[in-house]
Amino acid sequence: MEIKIVRNVLRANDEVAARNRALLRQHGVFTVNLISSPGSGKTTLLERTLEALGEKWRLAIIVGDLATTRDAERIGRYGVPTVQINTEGACHLEAHLVARCLADLDLSHLEVLFIENVGNLVCPVGYDLGEEVKVGLVSVTEGDDKAAKYPRLFREAGCVVVNKTDLLPYVDFSRERFRAEVAAINARVPVLELSCRTGEGLDQWFSWLQQRREQAHQRPAGA
Amino acid sequence: MEIKIVRNVLRANDEVAARNRALLRQHGVFTVNLISSPGSGKTTLLERTLEALGEKWRLAIIVGDLATTRDAERIGRYGVPTVQINTEGACHLEAHLVARCLADLDLSHLEVLFIENVGNLVCPVGYDLGEEVKVGLVSVTEGDDKAAKYPRLFREAGCVVVNKTDLLPYVDFSRERFRAEVAAINARVPVLELSCRTGEGLDQWFSWLQQRREQAHQRPAGA
Repeated sequence: MEIKIVRNVLRANDEVAARNRALLRQHGVFTVNLISSPGSGKTTLLERTLEALGEKWRLAIIVGDLATTRDAERIGRYGVPTVQINTEGACHLEAHLVARCLADLDLSHLEVLFIENVGNLVCPVGYDLGEEVKVGLVSVTEGDDKAAKYPRLFREAGCVVVNKTDLLPYVDFSRERFRAEVAAINARVPVLELSCRTGEGLDQWFSWLQQRREQAHQRPAGA
Repeated sequence: MEIKIVRNVLRANDEVAARNRALLRQHGVFTVNLISSPGSGKTTLLERTLEALGEKWRLAIIVGDLATTRDAERIGRYGVPTVQINTEGACHLEAHLVARCLADLDLSHLEVLFIENVGNLVCPVGYDLGEEVKVGLVSVTEGDDKAAKYPRLFREAGCVVVNKTDLLPYVDFSRERFRAEVAAINARVPVLELSCRTGEGLDQWFSWLQQRREQAHQRPAGA
């Protein structure tokens, strides 16, 4: 009985997510759902991305948090449209919350939308928001065992970003072990190592975004 | 309708948690529910604790993970009874899972039980397991804004541990800001700064455990 209810909730979410996706594709908006633990660097990665691409692309950001508007305030400094969702305790974003934000954004003037999910390596993965691609972010300080221990995100991610590589000298993190464990779960996913602090490796992230956005645009209409 | 169902689930959990708590208190077992994001250092803190207190106290560990038995293998090296719970995707432990583990442990020979929850700063907080006290663990690499952004854990924790202080020189983490934000949510909770890597500050953690365990023992029977 409980399982049935949970399935209905997920099915309802999927229906709204499909409507979000259709709307975003119709307007040619490339949408990224960014998922990580608290403190891995989602907001900082978006700040670096806005600095590099904020003038080139027409961007908007939806920021999910349990409480506070701090991340939206950080992002808002870059002058791009930013919508904060406060989940008031809920552990993930859902498609209907994103749908309400889309109604507030001028999609016809938008090219790229980033959705910063609630900091949580588990629950957000189960909820499609209508994005084009999920990006899984971890930092080297969290240890090299995260893909094996939290496999679902790594299975569904279109890109894995490893942040805080500037701290590699001070922590026990084997890049080889992490990459091997990601590959065992998802052989094709790119793994991009970078440091939002020093800027090292960010170019790969910008290239990946550009490439995936072009691929999305080349999709035949209605696909 | 959905809310009602969720409430029933939580009420059922609370009933099992109350039975766990009564059973543990009856056997004089002091029980700690350890909650943090993935990679903050829960397992490492337990390893350091077993090294220091494993011969002094009769300890057991329950380890929750979505997948793998890696943490239980790490803990198992110290020769204490260890039970791994694999939640198979679920984002938190629940009281009935702990109840099954308690049936496998010889409680009459036990003094202290640590429950290492699933790595998640949100969902585990809502589920009482029957513990004496919740400990919230963060690491300095996650940023100093975690108490304000994930307030419920900090409101309910009997102790806040700040790990990885050896990385303070390399990250932006204001100890004053973090402490002020914790105090605004929970004025009485102790905040213990330590490094499981260098051992600095671990003595405070051991003292706190000792003190809280003695307080629990002094509780009048049936309280």
